[in-house]
Amino acid sequence: MREMKFSTLSYSDGVVWMLDQTKLPQEEIQVEHRTVEEVADSIRDMIVRGAPAIGIAAGYGMLLAARAWSSSRGDFGSWMNDSRELLSKTRPTAVNLFWALDRMSAVAKNVGNLDHGKRVAALEAEALSIHQEDRAMCYHIGVHGAALLEDRMTVMTHCNAGALATGGAGTALALFRVAKEQGKTIRVISNETRPYLQGARLTAWELMKDEIDVTLVADNAAAALIQRGKVDAVVVGTDRTVANGDVANKIGTYAVALAAKASGIPFYVAAPTSTIDLSLQTGDDIEIEERDGQEVRTVFGKPIAPEGVPVMNPAFDVTPNELVTAIITERGVVRAPYEVNLRQIMEVGDE
Amino acid sequence: MREMKFSTLSYSDGVVWMLDQTKLPQEEIQVEHRTVEEVADSIRDMIVRGAPAIGIAAGYGMLLAARAWSSSRGDFGSWMNDSRELLSKTRPTAVNLFWALDRMSAVAKNVGNLDHGKRVAALEAEALSIHQEDRAMCYHIGVHGAALLEDRMTVMTHCNAGALATGGAGTALALFRVAKEQGKTIRVISNETRPYLQGARLTAWELMKDEIDVTLVADNAAAALIQRGKVDAVVVGTDRTVANGDVANKIGTYAVALAAKASGIPFYVAAPTSTIDLSLQTGDDIEIEERDGQEVRTVFGKPIAPEGVPVMNPAFDVTPNELVTAIITERGVVRAPYEVNLRQIMEVGDE
Repeated sequence: MREMKFSTLSYSDGVVWMLDQTKLPQEEIQVEHRTVEEVADSIRDMIVRGAPAIGIAAGYGMLLAARAWSSSRGDFGSWMNDSRELLSKTRPTAVNLFWALDRMSAVAKNVGNLDHGKRVAALEAEALSIHQEDRAMCYHIGVHGAALLEDRMTVMTHCNAGALATGGAGTALALFRVAKEQGKTIRVISNETRPYLQGARLTAWELMKDEIDVTLVADNAAAALIQRGKVDAVVVGTDRTVANGDVANKIGTYAVALAAKASGIPFYVAAPTSTIDLSLQTGDDIEIEERDGQEVRTVFGKPIAPEGVPVMNPAFDVTPNELVTAIITERGVVRAPYEVNLRQIMEVGDE
Repeated sequence: MREMKFSTLSYSDGVVWMLDQTKLPQEEIQVEHRTVEEVADSIRDMIVRGAPAIGIAAGYGMLLAARAWSSSRGDFGSWMNDSRELLSKTRPTAVNLFWALDRMSAVAKNVGNLDHGKRVAALEAEALSIHQEDRAMCYHIGVHGAALLEDRMTVMTHCNAGALATGGAGTALALFRVAKEQGKTIRVISNETRPYLQGARLTAWELMKDEIDVTLVADNAAAALIQRGKVDAVVVGTDRTVANGDVANKIGTYAVALAAKASGIPFYVAAPTSTIDLSLQTGDDIEIEERDGQEVRTVFGKPIAPEGVPVMNPAFDVTPNELVTAIITERGVVRAPYEVNLRQIMEVGDE
């Protein structure tokens, strides 16, 4: 597919570039990284965010570490282990981070006895491969999902399952990019996604940037717009989908799914197979992260509530399978009964 | 009932005091008003807000106008008409504003031929009566509604149907104040209510002030908390309830009602009979105000989204009658079938 009009992260000649997402949407700054320490800082400081994008950044971080090695630094294996340790402490709950570090560490170990130029070449190939696989995953989700969208539809999304969170066109947002390539005009409604405002800051920004028609709404308006017939379908991402098809995603997703069901419009979930976890049977088994209350008491540091008011701030909610019309993976579209069909798609492997 | 620990608006010896709601929750400032012009400014600038509170303020404004009259100002009737005109332009869509101005104008006309001291006394009695009737309405809603709440319940509310919006204990929030007087411990969850954040700024503030246990959540968390069994009932206010029991209230209410229905908890609406409009048959007949997009693009003037992103910002939504467990009025609790029972309660008149 055509290139997007911005780059979330990229690698070239020993430099990792990342779009500083903490500055969006006001400023568009590419941050240069020449060392693993700089990459670790950027992951920790959320210059880059989104599970797939963090994994890719970590891969490049390991590559920069390898490039910086010289015999004066001691044993290569120890040096790479230290780098892995540094990166692993940046966002300790990010599953993709560890997955990418495992892949890079395995390669580092395999090539430990080769000359250093070959080690770097092997690690560069692996880092680029992690990135490329993610780009392909996004594209395939986009193709499978875009087939569900018709020209002139208005589609709602929640949070940012976009290019800013991945190495490619995004997961949920890939549908809109592929649909556009196919000549379909899709209008997107982006819920602002309090408390962290990913929909307002990131989704609205990246869709405007790619000249996709986007309208921003307060989360409170989502259900009413669906009820009033202003929305034809909903597409969201997911952090984890379990064996029975229950879907954990950004807080607020469940209410949108209830509204979609009440008005009889489809509710689609874009889910890379890497986020499908068949070890958990139902959504009840998913632990819900509770985040700091200051995210709710303030907006960009500005107080909006009485000081010290007690807060509950769950980061995710669970949408039960009966509200999910279909789950769009890079391997194809899965529908109910999810118990059977999710297991099946996990067994077939990539196309 | 016992006095609250703050005063939204009050009158004493020629001075109207209003709590400056634009400064809440950071500062608690009582603004002094000695002229009708000052009252008009405060209504326009939203120092005071909420339909009942605006009506009461307008009544006091007319009283200050009458007190300021002297024969050098010309004809008393014209002077009062000019004052009415001034006040009516402050918030032209506020129904209670016109209702209060009509009452004060009728009295001004009736007493036009009396000596000036008697005119002022009559207008003071009417303004105080408007305030007192509102206080009584709140209290009766509180009593009828508190009977529906049991000790140790957790109750969710949306927006601010509170003392800050009325001349008394509020409508929805009156339930919590009366329940507390009855010795019941109620825990309240206040949804922050984007875009204008009435739940975060006002409801959280006034409940903390009155030492009622309140927890603030992002609107996105509301449905998930209901789903997870953390909420026993929902109580909201209403701007307008129509003949079939459909309820217009602050945007976001409908999604909360859907979640309450899905989890089988009661969804109550506190509705003064003054907000029940039998001239409209269903919620489809209610025109939904669309507000300025800057409310969504910014929080307290701070941009949170790309400049110029298109926005939809409906101020209200409609909750269909089948999601409403009961409507709590000052005359008693109304349940389905609403077509019959709302008409009946409107016919019986006040207790």
